[in-house]
Amino acid sequence: MKIAILGTGMVGATIGSKLVALGHEVCMGSRTPDNEKAAAFVTQNGPRASRGTFADAAAFGDVIFNCTKGEHSLEALRLAGAENLRGKTLIDIANPLDFSNGMPPSLFVCNTDSLGEQIQRAFPETQVVKTLNIVNCEVMVDAARSGGDPTMFVSGNDAGAKNQAIDFLKAFGWNDIIDLGDITTARGTEQLLPVWVRTWMATGNGHFAFKIVR
Amino acid sequence: MKIAILGTGMVGATIGSKLVALGHEVCMGSRTPDNEKAAAFVTQNGPRASRGTFADAAAFGDVIFNCTKGEHSLEALRLAGAENLRGKTLIDIANPLDFSNGMPPSLFVCNTDSLGEQIQRAFPETQVVKTLNIVNCEVMVDAARSGGDPTMFVSGNDAGAKNQAIDFLKAFGWNDIIDLGDITTARGTEQLLPVWVRTWMATGNGHFAFKIVR
Repeated sequence: MKIAILGTGMVGATIGSKLVALGHEVCMGSRTPDNEKAAAFVTQNGPRASRGTFADAAAFGDVIFNCTKGEHSLEALRLAGAENLRGKTLIDIANPLDFSNGMPPSLFVCNTDSLGEQIQRAFPETQVVKTLNIVNCEVMVDAARSGGDPTMFVSGNDAGAKNQAIDFLKAFGWNDIIDLGDITTARGTEQLLPVWVRTWMATGNGHFAFKIVR
Repeated sequence: MKIAILGTGMVGATIGSKLVALGHEVCMGSRTPDNEKAAAFVTQNGPRASRGTFADAAAFGDVIFNCTKGEHSLEALRLAGAENLRGKTLIDIANPLDFSNGMPPSLFVCNTDSLGEQIQRAFPETQVVKTLNIVNCEVMVDAARSGGDPTMFVSGNDAGAKNQAIDFLKAFGWNDIIDLGDITTARGTEQLLPVWVRTWMATGNGHFAFKIVR
Protein backbone atom coordinates (compact mmCIF):
# COMPACT_ATOMS: atom_id res chain seq x y z
CA MET A 1 0.00 0.00 0.00
CA LYS A 2 1.08 3.62 -0.56
CA ILE A 3 1.36 5.36 2.78
CA ALA A 4 2.13 8.94 3.79
CA ILE A 5 3.96 9.74 6.99
CA LEU A 6 3.56 13.37 8.02
CA GLY A 7 6.38 14.35 10.33
CA THR A 8 10.09 13.56 10.39
CA GLY A 9 10.63 13.00 14.12
CA MET A 10 11.25 9.73 15.92
CA VAL A 11 7.60 8.69 15.69
CA GLY A 12 7.43 9.23 11.94
CA ALA A 13 10.78 7.55 11.29
CA THR A 14 9.94 4.54 13.46
CA ILE A 15 6.49 3.99 11.97
CA GLY A 16 7.70 4.72 8.44
CA SER A 17 10.57 2.24 8.74
CA LYS A 18 8.26 -0.43 10.13
CA LEU A 19 5.81 0.10 7.26
CA VAL A 20 8.62 -0.21 4.70
CA ALA A 21 9.77 -3.41 6.43
CA LEU A 22 6.20 -4.71 6.11
CA GLY A 23 6.39 -4.16 2.35
CA HIS A 24 4.59 -0.85 1.96
CA GLU A 25 5.72 2.16 -0.07
CA VAL A 26 6.18 5.11 2.27
CA CYS A 27 6.53 8.81 1.46
CA MET A 28 7.67 10.97 4.38
CA GLY A 29 6.31 14.50 4.23
CA SER A 30 7.75 17.60 5.84
CA ARG A 31 7.29 21.36 5.68
CA THR A 32 10.11 21.79 3.18
CA PRO A 33 11.17 19.35 0.45
CA ASP A 34 14.82 19.34 1.55
CA ASN A 35 14.36 18.08 5.13
CA GLU A 36 17.55 16.29 6.29
CA LYS A 37 15.77 13.80 8.52
CA ALA A 38 13.47 12.80 5.67
CA ALA A 39 16.55 12.37 3.46
CA ALA A 40 18.11 10.09 6.09
CA PHE A 41 14.86 8.12 6.27
CA VAL A 42 14.98 7.51 2.52
CA THR A 43 18.65 6.54 2.61
CA GLN A 44 18.07 4.08 5.44
CA ASN A 45 14.95 2.48 4.01
CA GLY A 46 15.81 2.02 0.35
CA PRO A 47 13.72 2.14 -2.80
CA ARG A 48 10.28 1.79 -1.17
CA ALA A 49 10.92 5.02 0.80
CA SER A 50 10.52 8.50 -0.63
CA ARG A 51 10.10 12.05 0.63
CA GLY A 52 8.48 15.34 -0.25
CA THR A 53 6.40 18.15 1.14
CA PHE A 54 3.38 17.46 3.30
CA ALA A 55 1.28 17.90 0.16
CA ASP A 56 3.49 15.55 -1.90
CA ALA A 57 3.21 12.87 0.77
CA ALA A 58 -0.53 13.25 1.29
CA ALA A 59 -1.14 13.08 -2.48
CA PHE A 60 0.99 9.90 -2.64
CA GLY A 61 -0.59 8.07 0.27
CA ASP A 62 -3.77 6.03 0.24
CA VAL A 63 -3.51 6.15 4.03
CA ILE A 64 -1.95 9.00 6.02
CA PHE A 65 -0.25 8.74 9.42
CA ASN A 66 -0.16 12.03 11.32
CA CYS A 67 3.14 11.81 13.22
CA THR A 68 3.61 15.54 13.69
CA LYS A 69 3.76 17.19 17.11
CA GLY A 70 0.26 18.02 18.29
CA GLU A 71 0.85 21.75 18.35
CA HIS A 72 1.75 21.67 14.65
CA SER A 73 -0.72 19.04 13.44
CA LEU A 74 -3.51 21.27 12.14
CA GLU A 75 -1.07 23.48 10.26
CA ALA A 76 0.76 20.49 8.79
CA LEU A 77 -2.53 19.01 7.63
CA ARG A 78 -3.58 22.32 6.06
CA LEU A 79 -0.28 22.33 4.19
CA ALA A 80 -0.97 18.71 3.17
CA GLY A 81 -4.20 20.00 1.66
CA ALA A 82 -7.78 18.91 2.17
CA GLU A 83 -7.91 17.78 -1.46
CA ASN A 84 -5.03 15.36 -0.85
CA LEU A 85 -6.66 14.00 2.32
CA ARG A 86 -10.21 13.67 0.99
CA GLY A 87 -11.78 10.24 1.30
CA LYS A 88 -8.68 8.79 2.98
CA THR A 89 -8.01 7.25 6.37
CA LEU A 90 -5.92 9.54 8.57
CA ILE A 91 -4.34 7.68 11.47
CA ASP A 92 -3.75 10.38 14.07
CA ILE A 93 -0.98 9.60 16.56
CA ALA A 94 -0.38 13.16 17.74
CA ASN A 95 -0.96 14.37 21.28
CA PRO A 96 -1.96 17.88 22.38
CA LEU A 97 1.03 18.29 24.68
CA ASP A 98 1.81 21.77 25.96
CA PHE A 99 5.40 22.11 27.18
CA SER A 100 5.20 25.90 27.55
CA ASN A 101 5.47 25.55 31.32
CA GLY A 102 8.15 22.85 31.16
CA MET A 103 7.84 19.31 32.48
CA PRO A 104 5.46 17.68 32.99
CA PRO A 105 3.44 18.94 30.02
CA SER A 106 -0.23 19.85 30.25
CA LEU A 107 -2.70 19.40 27.38
CA PHE A 108 -3.65 22.33 25.15
CA VAL A 109 -7.04 20.77 24.51
CA CYS A 110 -8.84 18.21 26.67
CA ASN A 111 -11.92 17.23 28.63
CA THR A 112 -14.72 18.55 26.37
CA ASP A 113 -12.73 18.42 23.13
CA SER A 114 -9.63 16.71 21.75
CA LEU A 115 -7.02 17.13 19.06
CA GLY A 116 -8.54 14.17 17.22
CA GLU A 117 -11.88 15.97 17.09
CA GLN A 118 -10.26 19.24 16.02
CA ILE A 119 -8.64 17.43 13.11
CA GLN A 120 -11.86 15.63 12.17
CA ARG A 121 -13.79 18.93 12.23
CA ALA A 122 -11.14 20.65 10.09
CA PHE A 123 -11.17 17.82 7.51
CA PRO A 124 -14.73 16.49 7.46
CA GLU A 125 -14.18 14.48 4.27
CA THR A 126 -11.25 12.57 5.80
CA GLN A 127 -11.76 9.56 8.09
CA VAL A 128 -9.76 10.26 11.23
CA VAL A 129 -8.80 7.38 13.53
CA LYS A 130 -7.05 8.16 16.80
CA THR A 131 -4.77 5.38 17.97
CA LEU A 132 -1.20 4.51 19.05
CA ASN A 133 -0.81 7.87 20.83
CA ILE A 134 -0.57 6.23 24.28
CA VAL A 135 2.81 4.50 23.96
CA ASN A 136 6.44 5.20 23.08
CA CYS A 137 7.08 4.85 19.33
CA GLU A 138 9.14 1.67 19.71
CA VAL A 139 6.17 0.07 21.46
CA MET A 140 3.80 1.44 18.80
CA VAL A 141 5.38 -0.76 16.13
CA ASP A 142 6.11 -3.74 18.42
CA ALA A 143 3.55 -4.18 21.18
CA ALA A 144 5.54 -6.99 22.79
CA ARG A 145 8.40 -4.52 23.35
CA SER A 146 6.37 -3.45 26.41
CA GLY A 147 7.01 -6.85 27.95
CA GLY A 148 3.49 -8.21 27.64
CA ASP A 149 0.28 -8.19 25.64
CA PRO A 150 -1.08 -4.67 26.18
CA THR A 151 -4.29 -3.03 24.99
CA MET A 152 -4.60 -0.49 22.20
CA PHE A 153 -7.64 1.74 21.70
CA VAL A 154 -9.11 3.06 18.45
CA SER A 155 -11.47 6.04 18.17
CA GLY A 156 -13.15 7.23 15.02
CA ASN A 157 -16.43 7.91 13.25
CA ASP A 158 -15.91 5.54 10.31
CA ALA A 159 -15.97 1.76 10.81
CA GLY A 160 -14.06 1.05 7.60
CA ALA A 161 -11.27 3.43 8.55
CA LYS A 162 -11.07 1.89 12.01
CA ASN A 163 -10.79 -1.57 10.46
CA GLN A 164 -7.99 -0.31 8.26
CA ALA A 165 -6.22 1.09 11.33
CA ILE A 166 -6.78 -2.19 13.17
CA ASP A 167 -5.07 -4.08 10.33
CA PHE A 168 -1.98 -1.91 10.86
CA LEU A 169 -2.20 -2.44 14.63
CA LYS A 170 -2.26 -6.21 14.16
CA ALA A 171 0.78 -5.98 11.87
CA PHE A 172 2.48 -4.05 14.69
CA GLY A 173 1.77 -6.91 17.12
CA TRP A 174 -1.30 -5.55 18.92
CA ASN A 175 -3.59 -8.45 19.78
CA ASP A 176 -5.90 -6.74 22.28
CA ILE A 177 -7.70 -3.85 20.58
CA ILE A 178 -10.70 -1.99 21.99
CA ASP A 179 -12.87 0.14 19.71
CA LEU A 180 -13.99 2.91 22.08
CA GLY A 181 -16.45 4.44 19.64
CA ASP A 182 -16.54 7.71 17.73
CA ILE A 183 -13.81 10.33 17.55
CA THR A 184 -15.03 12.03 20.77
CA THR A 185 -13.57 9.05 22.62
CA ALA A 186 -10.14 10.41 21.69
CA ARG A 187 -10.65 12.71 24.69
CA GLY A 188 -10.11 9.67 26.86
CA THR A 189 -7.01 8.36 25.16
CA GLU A 190 -5.39 11.79 24.84
CA GLN A 191 -6.02 12.25 28.56
CA LEU A 192 -3.95 9.12 29.22
CA LEU A 193 -0.87 11.18 28.46
CA PRO A 194 -0.58 12.85 31.88
CA VAL A 195 -0.46 9.49 33.67
CA TRP A 196 1.83 8.15 30.93
CA VAL A 197 4.31 10.96 31.58
CA ARG A 198 4.12 10.54 35.36
CA THR A 199 4.53 6.76 35.13
CA TRP A 200 7.57 7.25 32.93
CA MET A 201 9.00 9.81 35.39
CA ALA A 202 8.29 7.52 38.38
CA THR A 203 9.64 4.30 36.88
CA GLY A 204 12.35 5.57 34.51
CA ASN A 205 10.99 3.16 31.91
CA GLY A 206 9.37 4.51 28.75
CA HIS A 207 8.73 1.13 27.16
CA PHE A 208 5.55 0.36 29.02
CA ALA A 209 1.95 0.13 27.82
CA PHE A 210 -1.56 0.04 29.23
CA LYS A 211 -3.52 -3.19 29.57
CA ILE A 212 -7.22 -3.29 30.30
CA VAL A 213 -7.33 -6.27 32.67
CA ARG A 214 -10.78 -7.87 32.35
CA MET B 1 -7.53 0.71 63.51
CA LYS B 2 -10.28 3.35 63.82
CA ILE B 3 -11.32 4.45 60.34
CA ALA B 4 -13.76 7.08 59.08
CA ILE B 5 -15.68 6.59 55.85
CA LEU B 6 -17.11 9.84 54.53
CA GLY B 7 -20.02 9.10 52.21
CA THR B 8 -22.82 6.55 52.27
CA GLY B 9 -22.93 5.52 48.62
CA MET B 10 -21.79 2.24 47.10
CA VAL B 11 -18.11 3.17 47.34
CA GLY B 12 -18.34 4.02 51.03
CA ALA B 13 -20.40 0.96 51.89
CA THR B 14 -18.13 -1.38 49.94
CA ILE B 15 -14.90 -0.04 51.40
CA GLY B 16 -16.38 0.27 54.89
CA SER B 17 -17.61 -3.32 54.86
CA LYS B 18 -14.25 -4.58 53.62
CA LEU B 19 -12.45 -2.67 56.38
CA VAL B 20 -14.79 -4.13 59.03
CA ALA B 21 -14.16 -7.60 57.58
CA LEU B 22 -10.43 -6.93 57.92
CA GLY B 23 -10.95 -6.25 61.64
CA HIS B 24 -11.05 -2.46 61.71
CA GLU B 25 -13.56 -0.26 63.53
CA VAL B 26 -15.38 1.87 60.98
CA CYS B 27 -17.54 4.95 61.48
CA MET B 28 -19.55 6.01 58.43
CA GLY B 29 -20.15 9.75 58.27
CA SER B 30 -22.91 11.57 56.47
CA ARG B 31 -24.36 15.07 56.30
CA THR B 32 -27.09 14.25 58.83
CA PRO B 33 -26.83 11.82 61.77
CA ASP B 34 -29.97 9.89 60.75
CA ASN B 35 -28.89 8.74 57.28
CA GLU B 36 -30.71 5.54 56.33
CA LYS B 37 -27.90 4.07 54.25
CA ALA B 38 -25.48 4.60 57.14
CA ALA B 39 -27.97 2.85 59.44
CA ALA B 40 -28.13 -0.10 57.05
CA PHE B 41 -24.33 -0.20 56.94
CA VAL B 42 -24.20 -0.46 60.74
CA THR B 43 -26.89 -3.16 60.82
CA GLN B 44 -25.11 -5.20 58.18
CA ASN B 45 -21.63 -4.91 59.64
CA GLY B 46 -22.21 -5.46 63.35
CA PRO B 47 -20.53 -4.05 66.43
CA ARG B 48 -17.36 -2.78 64.75
CA ALA B 49 -19.47 -0.46 62.57
CA SER B 50 -20.90 2.87 63.69
CA ARG B 51 -22.26 6.03 62.16
CA GLY B 52 -22.53 9.75 62.73
CA THR B 53 -22.10 13.11 61.08
CA PHE B 54 -19.09 13.84 58.89
CA ALA B 55 -17.56 15.53 61.96
CA ASP B 56 -18.36 12.56 64.24
CA ALA B 57 -16.74 10.16 61.79
CA ALA B 58 -13.67 12.33 61.17
CA ALA B 59 -13.13 12.78 64.91
CA PHE B 60 -13.38 8.99 65.36
CA GLY B 61 -11.02 7.96 62.58
CA ASP B 62 -7.26 7.79 62.70
CA VAL B 63 -7.47 7.46 58.92
CA ILE B 64 -10.21 8.98 56.75
CA PHE B 65 -11.48 7.63 53.42
CA ASN B 66 -13.16 10.27 51.25
CA CYS B 67 -15.88 8.30 49.46
CA THR B 68 -18.13 11.25 48.69
CA LYS B 69 -19.00 12.31 45.18
CA GLY B 70 -16.37 14.67 43.85
CA GLU B 71 -18.74 17.60 43.50
CA HIS B 72 -19.54 17.38 47.24
CA SER B 73 -16.12 16.44 48.58
CA LEU B 74 -14.84 19.84 49.63
CA GLU B 75 -18.09 20.71 51.39
CA ALA B 76 -18.22 17.32 53.14
CA LEU B 77 -14.65 17.78 54.32
CA ARG B 78 -15.43 21.29 55.61
CA LEU B 79 -18.33 19.80 57.55
CA ALA B 80 -15.97 17.10 58.83
CA GLY B 81 -13.84 19.93 60.17
CA ALA B 82 -10.18 20.76 59.65
CA GLU B 83 -9.57 20.13 63.37
CA ASN B 84 -10.85 16.55 63.01
CA LEU B 85 -8.70 15.93 59.94
CA ARG B 86 -5.51 17.54 61.21
CA GLY B 87 -2.42 15.32 61.15
CA LYS B 88 -4.33 12.40 59.66
CA THR B 89 -4.08 10.47 56.41
CA LEU B 90 -6.98 11.22 54.08
CA ILE B 91 -7.37 8.60 51.37
CA ASP B 92 -9.16 10.41 48.57
CA ILE B 93 -11.13 8.18 46.22
CA ALA B 94 -13.40 10.86 44.77
CA ASN B 95 -13.43 11.89 41.13
CA PRO B 96 -14.29 15.33 39.73
CA LEU B 97 -17.03 14.01 37.48
CA ASP B 98 -19.42 16.52 35.94
CA PHE B 99 -22.68 14.92 34.78
CA SER B 100 -24.37 18.27 34.10
CA ASN B 101 -24.37 17.53 30.36
CA GLY B 102 -25.34 13.88 30.79
CA MET B 103 -23.27 10.87 29.76
CA PRO B 104 -20.40 10.61 29.35
CA PRO B 105 -19.33 12.93 32.15
CA SER B 106 -16.61 15.53 31.78
CA LEU B 107 -14.29 16.61 34.61
CA PHE B 108 -14.98 19.80 36.58
CA VAL B 109 -11.27 20.19 37.29
CA CYS B 110 -8.39 18.70 35.28
CA ASN B 111 -5.19 19.23 33.34
CA THR B 112 -3.47 21.95 35.43
CA ASP B 113 -5.20 21.11 38.72
CA SER B 114 -7.07 18.20 40.30
CA LEU B 115 -9.60 17.47 43.00
CA GLY B 116 -6.85 15.83 45.05
CA GLU B 117 -4.85 19.04 44.94
CA GLN B 118 -7.90 21.15 45.79
CA ILE B 119 -8.47 19.01 48.88
CA GLN B 120 -4.80 19.15 49.87
CA ARG B 121 -4.76 22.95 49.51
CA ALA B 122 -7.97 23.28 51.55
CA PHE B 123 -6.60 21.07 54.35
CA PRO B 124 -2.85 21.69 54.43
CA GLU B 125 -2.39 19.95 57.78
CA THR B 126 -3.94 16.71 56.47
CA GLN B 127 -1.95 14.20 54.43
CA VAL B 128 -3.97 13.56 51.28
CA VAL B 129 -3.31 10.40 49.24
CA LYS B 130 -5.13 9.93 45.96
CA THR B 131 -5.71 6.30 45.07
CA LEU B 132 -8.34 3.68 44.13
CA ASN B 133 -10.33 6.25 42.10
CA ILE B 134 -9.65 4.43 38.81
CA VAL B 135 -11.72 1.27 39.33
CA ASN B 136 -15.23 0.14 40.24
CA CYS B 137 -15.69 -0.19 44.02
CA GLU B 138 -15.87 -3.98 43.94
CA VAL B 139 -12.48 -4.02 42.24
CA MET B 140 -11.15 -1.44 44.73
CA VAL B 141 -11.48 -3.93 47.61
CA ASP B 142 -10.58 -7.04 45.58
CA ALA B 143 -8.08 -6.36 42.82
CA ALA B 144 -8.38 -9.91 41.47
CA ARG B 145 -12.08 -9.25 40.80
CA SER B 146 -10.79 -7.56 37.61
CA GLY B 147 -9.62 -10.94 36.37
CA GLY B 148 -5.90 -10.32 36.68
CA ASP B 149 -3.16 -8.55 38.60
CA PRO B 150 -3.73 -4.89 37.78
CA THR B 151 -1.79 -1.76 38.75
CA MET B 152 -2.85 0.81 41.33
CA PHE B 153 -1.33 4.28 41.58
CA VAL B 154 -0.78 6.43 44.67
CA SER B 155 -0.24 10.19 44.66
CA GLY B 156 0.56 12.31 47.70
CA ASN B 157 3.03 14.67 49.31
CA ASP B 158 3.70 12.60 52.45
CA ALA B 159 5.66 9.34 52.24
CA GLY B 160 4.29 8.03 55.54
CA ALA B 161 0.70 8.61 54.48
CA LYS B 162 1.37 6.91 51.16
CA ASN B 163 2.82 3.91 52.97
CA GLN B 164 -0.29 3.78 55.14
CA ALA B 165 -2.46 3.86 52.00
CA ILE B 166 -0.30 1.15 50.41
CA ASP B 167 -0.90 -1.11 53.44
CA PHE B 168 -4.64 -0.81 52.79
CA LEU B 169 -4.13 -1.46 49.08
CA LYS B 170 -2.20 -4.65 49.85
CA ALA B 171 -4.99 -5.78 52.18
CA PHE B 172 -7.37 -5.19 49.25
CA GLY B 173 -5.28 -7.50 47.04
CA TRP B 174 -3.26 -4.95 45.09
CA ASN B 175 0.20 -6.37 44.39
CA ASP B 176 1.40 -3.94 41.72
CA ILE B 177 1.48 -0.42 43.14
CA ILE B 178 3.20 2.56 41.51
CA ASP B 179 3.96 5.67 43.57
CA LEU B 180 3.59 8.42 40.98
CA GLY B 181 4.90 11.19 43.22
CA ASP B 182 3.31 14.18 44.87
CA ILE B 183 -0.36 15.11 44.88
CA THR B 184 -0.07 16.93 41.54
CA THR B 185 0.18 13.47 39.95
CA ALA B 186 -3.50 13.01 40.85
CA ARG B 187 -4.14 15.01 37.66
CA GLY B 188 -3.03 11.95 35.74
CA THR B 189 -5.12 9.39 37.62
CA GLU B 190 -8.23 11.58 37.71
CA GLN B 191 -7.84 11.99 33.94
CA LEU B 192 -8.06 8.21 33.57
CA LEU B 193 -11.77 8.51 34.23
CA PRO B 194 -12.77 9.53 30.70
CA VAL B 195 -11.16 6.43 29.19
CA TRP B 196 -12.55 4.35 32.08
CA VAL B 197 -16.08 5.49 31.25
CA ARG B 198 -15.62 4.92 27.52
CA THR B 199 -14.10 1.47 28.05
CA TRP B 200 -17.03 0.56 30.27
CA MET B 201 -19.49 1.85 27.65
CA ALA B 202 -17.68 0.00 24.83
CA THR B 203 -17.27 -3.34 26.62
CA GLY B 204 -20.30 -3.39 28.94
CA ASN B 205 -17.97 -4.59 31.69
CA GLY B 206 -17.29 -2.36 34.70
CA HIS B 207 -15.10 -4.84 36.54
CA PHE B 208 -11.92 -4.06 34.68
CA ALA B 209 -8.73 -2.38 35.81
CA PHE B 210 -5.60 -0.82 34.33
CA LYS B 211 -2.28 -2.65 34.23
CA ILE B 212 0.98 -0.95 33.42
CA VAL B 213 2.62 -3.67 31.30
CA ARG B 214 6.40 -3.29 31.66
